[in-house]
Amino acid sequence: MKKKYQVVGIGNAMVDILSHVKDEFLAENGVEKGIMQLIDMQRAVELYDHMGPAQEISGGSAANTIAGIAALGGRTAYVGKVKDDQLGAIFAHDLRAQGAVYQTPFAPKIDSHETGRCMVLVTSDSERSLNTYLGVSESLGPDDIDTAMMAEAEWLYLEGYRFDGAKSKAAFAKAVTACKNAGGRVSLTLSDPFCVERHRDDFHEMISDHVDLLFCNVHEMQAMYPADSLEQSLKLAANEVEIVVCTASEDGAYILNGGGLEHAHAQPVDIVDATGAGDLFASGFLYGLTAGFDMLTCGRMGCIAAAEVISHIGARPETDLMELFREHGLV
Amino acid sequence: MKKKYQVVGIGNAMVDILSHVKDEFLAENGVEKGIMQLIDMQRAVELYDHMGPAQEISGGSAANTIAGIAALGGRTAYVGKVKDDQLGAIFAHDLRAQGAVYQTPFAPKIDSHETGRCMVLVTSDSERSLNTYLGVSESLGPDDIDTAMMAEAEWLYLEGYRFDGAKSKAAFAKAVTACKNAGGRVSLTLSDPFCVERHRDDFHEMISDHVDLLFCNVHEMQAMYPADSLEQSLKLAANEVEIVVCTASEDGAYILNGGGLEHAHAQPVDIVDATGAGDLFASGFLYGLTAGFDMLTCGRMGCIAAAEVISHIGARPETDLMELFREHGLV
Repeated sequence: MKKKYQVVGIGNAMVDILSHVKDEFLAENGVEKGIMQLIDMQRAVELYDHMGPAQEISGGSAANTIAGIAALGGRTAYVGKVKDDQLGAIFAHDLRAQGAVYQTPFAPKIDSHETGRCMVLVTSDSERSLNTYLGVSESLGPDDIDTAMMAEAEWLYLEGYRFDGAKSKAAFAKAVTACKNAGGRVSLTLSDPFCVERHRDDFHEMISDHVDLLFCNVHEMQAMYPADSLEQSLKLAANEVEIVVCTASEDGAYILNGGGLEHAHAQPVDIVDATGAGDLFASGFLYGLTAGFDMLTCGRMGCIAAAEVISHIGARPETDLMELFREHGLV
Repeated sequence: MKKKYQVVGIGNAMVDILSHVKDEFLAENGVEKGIMQLIDMQRAVELYDHMGPAQEISGGSAANTIAGIAALGGRTAYVGKVKDDQLGAIFAHDLRAQGAVYQTPFAPKIDSHETGRCMVLVTSDSERSLNTYLGVSESLGPDDIDTAMMAEAEWLYLEGYRFDGAKSKAAFAKAVTACKNAGGRVSLTLSDPFCVERHRDDFHEMISDHVDLLFCNVHEMQAMYPADSLEQSLKLAANEVEIVVCTASEDGAYILNGGGLEHAHAQPVDIVDATGAGDLFASGFLYGLTAGFDMLTCGRMGCIAAAEVISHIGARPETDLMELFREHGLV
């Protein structure tokens, strides 16, 4: 099938505010290291006041993934809500400038919330601790889902984080129905182990009923499918999903697709900022999948794209990913 | 003299929007390479629409200089106008988070202009081409000058670019008078050769009447004091100013201070983005000067700070400048 879009992503639209901090800063400011914490506006202001100089780069997990596929020349669209403010304009620009379609209506200026932002605190070990003020991205609902667009998607890519929104279940349901009715397929990323804890039942329902491809890392896998070993967890997942892809940092990625387990080795890299590793892995994998490559090649594409994005500050690719694929003999 | 501030800077407050582009992009979009062009809002929108994904980092020439001095632990303040909008909040945060005092009243939300921004287009040769929409920074006037703050400055640092503002001459005059009356001294950067062409007479008047320390690069020096050789230009400048400091890229910096010419050698570096080289040179030099170091050491501090800032994207320091000074045996 050749549809208008190879992948349509739905997620929390936001701009990342990146700053280098010391471990003590995390402790002093009650930030839990290495995970994503949701914060309200007051806390966002407080944390921002305390942190050092920063830089702003468009982010949002699924948006990063879509930007990565677009950077590879893939046909993509993204759905996620920003406001008609300066950060919203930056977010929209960066996605469109990368070649993705982005037409979610902006929340109006009168909305009391602003465009969402994520304070990304990078410590000297290159680990990132995410502090997310959802802002108007929280309000994405069924009305923002264009069923015609969903029907034009070969693959939907759903961001687990988005389950935090009040109207998100309904939005996802509408998108999934429209996509599947038109013969499309559905992928989901679990996003974060704590996100799994918050939405375990909703995730299970979505996964067993609709998801064809599940992305996660080993921590999320363990949270979603607790077992004595990763292999057992993978098998539990595979009972519910056709394709299970589990990233394992420097151990690369495991892919379970019906039959046997395949392993894509990681791309060695000097990590500068771990933000976006999983997002860009998904970019590489989904690009490969929709371009007709075998699972192992898809996995390697994911690993190479992930390595690129963690070699610099920010969760969007800065170098030519296709050129990297060429250098590694994948294309 | 030990005043509240070692350096108070006055300049165009803005956020940089940085993107990598090909040389063809500059040609196709009528951007002149390597210089700063002033653009209006319409042109800013048009150029932004055309350019690729970007990242936002607080900038503004004098603000970069002040941020650099603050990063070194120097006592600094900055005067430059932003609006009460998201980019304005980012600019203010980044300066304060670096340790500088920033209390210029924000232009109100009803102002039809926004916070100024500079589209920094970085080509593969690491050269940067600046496209500046001044926004509300244009409106800085005498009312924004706090004479008590100026009287508390050991050194004023005036940004040549700011001469582009309609009320800037009056603002500078007010600041200079308050500073000098209290025994402070005045430094000026010529900013850009085209800026020199635009404001030659105003520059001459300011320099001969008030400036004690002049910063420029060889192109600006040649524009301001045309002569057959750099040495001759330096001498022409030295007739008007006590201290002349002229940067010369990989040739380091020349310092003329009353008597003989001194030369500070450049710090070798792999250039990633040339933005802010001159700004951070001034940071290092002014820090050294106000901390009581000799001219040659000040020059080396300037060269090392400049090398740091061009080794990465963005015009604000990302590593510990004092640590670099230590490594080079300067402190």
